[in-house]
Amino acid sequence: MSKAKSITIFDTTLRDGEQSPGASMNIEEKLRIAHQLEKMNVDVIEAGFPIASEGDFEAVRRVAKAIKGPQIAGLCRASNKDIDRAWEALQYAGERGRIHTFIATSDIHMELKLKMSEEQVVEAAVKAVKRAAGYTPNVEFSAEDAVRTRLPFLARVVEAVIDAGAKTVNIPDTVGYTIPSEYFNIIKYLKDNVPNIEKTVLSVHCHNDLGLAVANSLAAVQAGAEQVECTINGIGERAGNCSLEEVVMALRTRHDIMPFKTGVQTEHIYAASKLLSTITGIVVQPNKAIVGANAFAHEAGIHQHGMLMDKSTYEIMTPESIGLSKNKLVLGKHSGRHAFVQRLGELGYDLSKEDIEKAFVRFKALADAKKEIFDEDLDAIVADEIIRVPETYKLLQMNVSSGSFAAPTATVEMEVDGKVKKTATMGDGPVDATFKAIKKLSRTKARLLNFSVGAITGGTDAQGECTVRLELDGREVLGQGAHPDIIVASAKAYINALNKMATVAQRTSIHL
Amino acid sequence: MSKAKSITIFDTTLRDGEQSPGASMNIEEKLRIAHQLEKMNVDVIEAGFPIASEGDFEAVRRVAKAIKGPQIAGLCRASNKDIDRAWEALQYAGERGRIHTFIATSDIHMELKLKMSEEQVVEAAVKAVKRAAGYTPNVEFSAEDAVRTRLPFLARVVEAVIDAGAKTVNIPDTVGYTIPSEYFNIIKYLKDNVPNIEKTVLSVHCHNDLGLAVANSLAAVQAGAEQVECTINGIGERAGNCSLEEVVMALRTRHDIMPFKTGVQTEHIYAASKLLSTITGIVVQPNKAIVGANAFAHEAGIHQHGMLMDKSTYEIMTPESIGLSKNKLVLGKHSGRHAFVQRLGELGYDLSKEDIEKAFVRFKALADAKKEIFDEDLDAIVADEIIRVPETYKLLQMNVSSGSFAAPTATVEMEVDGKVKKTATMGDGPVDATFKAIKKLSRTKARLLNFSVGAITGGTDAQGECTVRLELDGREVLGQGAHPDIIVASAKAYINALNKMATVAQRTSIHL
Repeated sequence: MSKAKSITIFDTTLRDGEQSPGASMNIEEKLRIAHQLEKMNVDVIEAGFPIASEGDFEAVRRVAKAIKGPQIAGLCRASNKDIDRAWEALQYAGERGRIHTFIATSDIHMELKLKMSEEQVVEAAVKAVKRAAGYTPNVEFSAEDAVRTRLPFLARVVEAVIDAGAKTVNIPDTVGYTIPSEYFNIIKYLKDNVPNIEKTVLSVHCHNDLGLAVANSLAAVQAGAEQVECTINGIGERAGNCSLEEVVMALRTRHDIMPFKTGVQTEHIYAASKLLSTITGIVVQPNKAIVGANAFAHEAGIHQHGMLMDKSTYEIMTPESIGLSKNKLVLGKHSGRHAFVQRLGELGYDLSKEDIEKAFVRFKALADAKKEIFDEDLDAIVADEIIRVPETYKLLQMNVSSGSFAAPTATVEMEVDGKVKKTATMGDGPVDATFKAIKKLSRTKARLLNFSVGAITGGTDAQGECTVRLELDGREVLGQGAHPDIIVASAKAYINALNKMATVAQRTSIHL
Repeated sequence: MSKAKSITIFDTTLRDGEQSPGASMNIEEKLRIAHQLEKMNVDVIEAGFPIASEGDFEAVRRVAKAIKGPQIAGLCRASNKDIDRAWEALQYAGERGRIHTFIATSDIHMELKLKMSEEQVVEAAVKAVKRAAGYTPNVEFSAEDAVRTRLPFLARVVEAVIDAGAKTVNIPDTVGYTIPSEYFNIIKYLKDNVPNIEKTVLSVHCHNDLGLAVANSLAAVQAGAEQVECTINGIGERAGNCSLEEVVMALRTRHDIMPFKTGVQTEHIYAASKLLSTITGIVVQPNKAIVGANAFAHEAGIHQHGMLMDKSTYEIMTPESIGLSKNKLVLGKHSGRHAFVQRLGELGYDLSKEDIEKAFVRFKALADAKKEIFDEDLDAIVADEIIRVPETYKLLQMNVSSGSFAAPTATVEMEVDGKVKKTATMGDGPVDATFKAIKKLSRTKARLLNFSVGAITGGTDAQGECTVRLELDGREVLGQGAHPDIIVASAKAYINALNKMATVAQRTSIHL
C-alpha cells in the first residue's frame, strides 16, 4: 500500500456537522470530539466558524490550543473581518492552523444571494485568499455551490485563487445535487483546464440530499481529488455530509480498484460514532453502513437460522477493523479503577483525574444496583456526570405515582438560582406531570421539541437514558439524563437542557 | 419525459427488507405495506420467500390475492420444491405473479456454500428457470453474489437462463462490495457480451455495506440496466438495500443527465417511510436522505438565523414532491369522522370499516385529553389499535409509584390465557418493576433485547410510544404500545410483544 496516493481526510463534524438541527455542542463536548478525531488521526479538523458567535470563536481557539496532531481549520466568509477573526482563534495551532475562506460562484447564488458580478466574485475571492495568506501559507478556498457553477468560470476562479496562494481548493456540492459520473467530469475538467492546478490540493465536499455523498466523493478521488471533507455518522445540514467512516472504509476495502490510502486509524471509528451520537442525541439508524447496529449483524448470529453458511462468504470487512468488539460486557461489581479507566480510554474518553473520580463513584453506585456494566452504561455515566454545564437548576428530590387507579402526579423539589422550591402537579402521564412541575418551578419559556428515551442495554435493570430537546428564540439545546428510574432520568434530562439553554449563545449559520 | 426509458421499480421491503434483524412483520402488517406500495405504483412487490415458513407462504398468498396493480414476486432457491411452493402462493396474481429463483455463481459461494462445479450451477439454474417457466412466463433469475463472479462465467450463466426463459435477469451485489465505476463495467460487459441479452430485462440489486447501494444502482441504470431492486428506507440485511426513495428521487431530480423515468407516485413516499418505521420500529436517522427529519430542514426555517437566503438557492426538490406537508397539525377535538378518515387515507392507511370505528373511538378519547392531534398521533393509534395480534395476554389494570421517597413499585393485573392474575413487584425503576410483574404473571422465557420510547410530538402531553424487542430461541419480535402515561405504554408494548411472540413462526433466511 506504500505506493498508493494519500488522501487528506478533512473532518467537519464540528462545523458543518454541528449545523444539523439540534446538534449544537458546548465547548467541552467539542473538545471531546476533537480529541477522538485526533486519536483517529484525521488530517484536518474544521473546528468551527469563528465569527459566528463568541462560543464558536472560543471553541476554535480551545481546539487549536489543545489538539496536537491534525491541522485545525476555521471557516470564514471572504471578508477581512471574518478572516482576521478566524486567525485570531487559529493562531494557537501555529503552522497547523488553516484559514478556510469561501464565496459562492454559481449564477443562482451570485445573483440571488451575493448580488455580485463574476468580476466582483473573482476579485473578492483573490482578495480574501491574499489576506489569509498574509497570516499563514495554510489557506483553503471553497467555491460555494461549485457543482452548479459554469465550468469555465469555475476554472477561472480556481486558477485565480491558486495564484493568490490557496494551497487547497475545495469544490463543494453545496446542495447535494450531483451524481458520481458528473462530479468525476467536473474534477477532471479542472485537472485538465486549470494551468496551475498541480500547485494546489483539490478537495471535495459533498452533501447527501440524493444519498450520493460518499459515491460522489469517491468518484472525485478517482478523478484526481486529494482531499475529502466529511463528518462522523455523515451528520450535517439537511441530509448531512459525506460520512467519514463510509468513505474511509470504502477506500480501505476496495483498495484493489481504488489505490488510495488515508491515515485514519479505523479501529477508533466505532467509538467516534458512539461518542457523537451520545453527545448530540442524533441517532444512527440500524441499517446505516459501517456503524449501524445491524451493519455487522451477520456476525452476531442473529438471523442465521436455517441456512448456515461460511462467514467469509458474506464478510467484506471485519467488525474489529472499526473497533466494534463483540464482547460488550466489560465491567462488573468487582472491577477496579484500573479496568474502569482502561475501558473508558478504549471507548474514546480521555478524562481529567477529577472527572475520572466523579465517574468512578457513579460507576460503583451503578455496579451495586446492577450485575453487569456495559459500554453503553459507561457512555451514559460520562454523558450524565462529566459533560456538564453550570447548574442554574438542580434536581433535589422527586416522587411520582400513576396508573389505572390514580391521576398521574409528580412532586418535585429543586434548586433554582440557589433557592429551594417544591411543588406537586398532575399531568397526562408521569413524565408530563414531572415536566409540568419543573416548568412551573423554573419558569422557563422554552418549548419542548422532543423527548426520547432509550434503554441502554438488554436487561430491564438498564439505566434509562433520556434526551430532551428544547427551543427558545430559535436556539435549540439537547439535555441528557441517565438513571435506572426512567422518570427521574427524564427530569434530569429536562433540567440539563434548561442549564444548557442558559449557556448556549445564538449563532450565524453557514451553508457550504 | 415521455421519450425517457422506463425503469422497473422492484420493491423487496417485504422480503429482503423483512430480513433485517427485528423487522419481522405479521401478515396484517405486510398487507398494509403492500397496499401502500400499490398506491405508490411500484412495478413489482416481492412479498416473501414462500418455502421459508407457513407465515411467509401465507403472506405471499394473501398479497397475491389482495394487490391489483403491481406484479407480485416470490423468492425461491433453484429447486423444484421451492419453485412449486412459490407458484402455489403466487398463482392468485395470475399473469402478474412472478417466480424469482436464484443460485450463487461466485467461486467463493460455489465452493464454500454450494459445493458445486460451474457445470452443475449452470445446469441447476437452467433447470430451475425451465421449471418456473412451466408455470408462468414471468420468471426472474438472480445470480447470487454476481459482483464477485468471474465475468465470462457470469455471462455464460446469464445467456443460459435467458435461453431457458428468464424474462428478467438480476445481477446482485449480495455483499455490498462494488463501487459505481466497477458495477457500470459489469453491466456494460453483459450488455456487450451476452448475445441474447436484449431478450431479457437486466436488473440490479445492491446492498449498502459501503454506503454505495444507491449510487451503484444508478450507475447500472446508466450502463443499461432496466430494473432496480430496492426497499423503503433502505432496510434490509446488514446495512440494508438500495433505498427506493433515494433512487427514485435521484432519477427524478437529475432527469436532465439521467433520462429515465419510473412510475412511482413520489408524493406517497413519505407516508410509506413513516408506515414502515411505525410497523418495524426501525428508525430513520434525521440525516437520512429524502425521508430523514432534517432532509428538508432548510424548509422548516429551523437554522436560518443570521443569514437569510432565497429558498431556491438551496432547494433541489420540494418537500411536497415526497408528500411531506409542512402543516403537521391535522385534527382537533371537533374534527369529525370524515376529516379523520380522509387524513388516515392521506397517511397511507386503508382501514376496514370495523378498524375505522375502533380507531375513531380511540381518536375521540385522545382528542379529549389533548388539544391537538398530529399525524404522529394517528400513526400511534393505528399501530396500537389496529395492527393487532390474538391476545393471549391482556393488560387489565396497573399502578406504579417511584422517586426519591420510595422504592419503585408496580402493581399489575392482567389476563393470561383467560385467567385473571395480579401481583406487585419492586424494581430499579418503574418500568423495571412493571416488566418484572408482567414477566412473573406471563411466565415468559423471552429475553428483553431492547426497550425504547419516543414521545411523538412537541408537547409534554404527547402520547408516549414505546417499543419492546424480545428474543426467544433466535426469534425476534417487536411490540408496540401507545399511551399518554409512558409506563402504561411500556407495559402495553411488552404485552404486545409477548402476544406477537406467540404467533411468529420460525423461518429460513436467504441472502441475496
